[in-house]
Amino acid sequence: MTESSGGPLELEIESLSAERFAPFGEVIEASAGRVGAGAYPIDVYPINDGGALRRDHVAQVDVEEGGGRLRVSVARAAPRTLPLLVEKLERHPLGSQAFVPMTTACFLVVVAGGVRPPRARELRAFLAGPGQGVSYRRGVWHLPLSVLERETDFLVLDREGPGENLEERALDRPVRIVLT
Amino acid sequence: MTESSGGPLELEIESLSAERFAPFGEVIEASAGRVGAGAYPIDVYPINDGGALRRDHVAQVDVEEGGGRLRVSVARAAPRTLPLLVEKLERHPLGSQAFVPMTTACFLVVVAGGVRPPRARELRAFLAGPGQGVSYRRGVWHLPLSVLERETDFLVLDREGPGENLEERALDRPVRIVLT
Repeated sequence: MTESSGGPLELEIESLSAERFAPFGEVIEASAGRVGAGAYPIDVYPINDGGALRRDHVAQVDVEEGGGRLRVSVARAAPRTLPLLVEKLERHPLGSQAFVPMTTACFLVVVAGGVRPPRARELRAFLAGPGQGVSYRRGVWHLPLSVLERETDFLVLDREGPGENLEERALDRPVRIVLT
Repeated sequence: MTESSGGPLELEIESLSAERFAPFGEVIEASAGRVGAGAYPIDVYPINDGGALRRDHVAQVDVEEGGGRLRVSVARAAPRTLPLLVEKLERHPLGSQAFVPMTTACFLVVVAGGVRPPRARELRAFLAGPGQGVSYRRGVWHLPLSVLERETDFLVLDREGPGENLEERALDRPVRIVLT
């Protein structure tokens, strides 16, 4: 994060990994390893007579708070371009929310920890690559779906049910997301 | 479906559509329509200040029978080639099962209606194109994940819990799936 006097904060994009994203939720992705290779990572197992490798529990779907239930949707998102100016974030206090691209795509994941309104200095930005989705833990501040390059369809897993499940807050200062 | 004396039945592949697939489950896909076009199909609505179109309830997740719950997984599948000889199908009597490709892919969907063991003459074969996934209704006979072209990662939504949720049955006669 670098600062230009008076203007927006600049935030560099990190590549997305399960470890880096752990404070905010899960990265939905296959384990490394080719089908039929013989030796598999500990978190996968072969299915379909060895024709596929399966990894379970890639996202913690948390949607039952306050009488909620799972909703499975598709969102078609228009592409955004870098650098991107972020002035507000949103969060869903009653449920997790997962996004998985349905075609080969890169998308931008911008998050902040904590329950109180996010501050510009606390943001992190990640680039999700082909074959990666994310699940935001319940209540995590994030930027709405921001795909790069081209219009892309995403599978969305989130909560529907009673109660107000959307909060939006302006940042104390805009943040410019840049790819270095 | 054509018959060659004594050998397998030949079954031609249809393109996948919601209407054709309705007896077996749902096609998971966006509605036609570009983001920002102004006029939208009746089943979608704009989100994110107009930056995306969302379509809800694209799959009926039915996993609670017998104390079951949702399991979110990723399966990495090795490609299969056409023509493909199908000698058995499987079904999950306790829950629905959905597959959504996470990169641009085509996969083969082979299904049969009814509860009793499937017969070769009853099979239908569909080609799911880029941006399409499927959800098999509980108990629908189907061929395991069969992607074409290249190794592909799929998001899988199905049931985990007590009870035996896998049944496999040989067909009365093999079926050769062909692309005409």
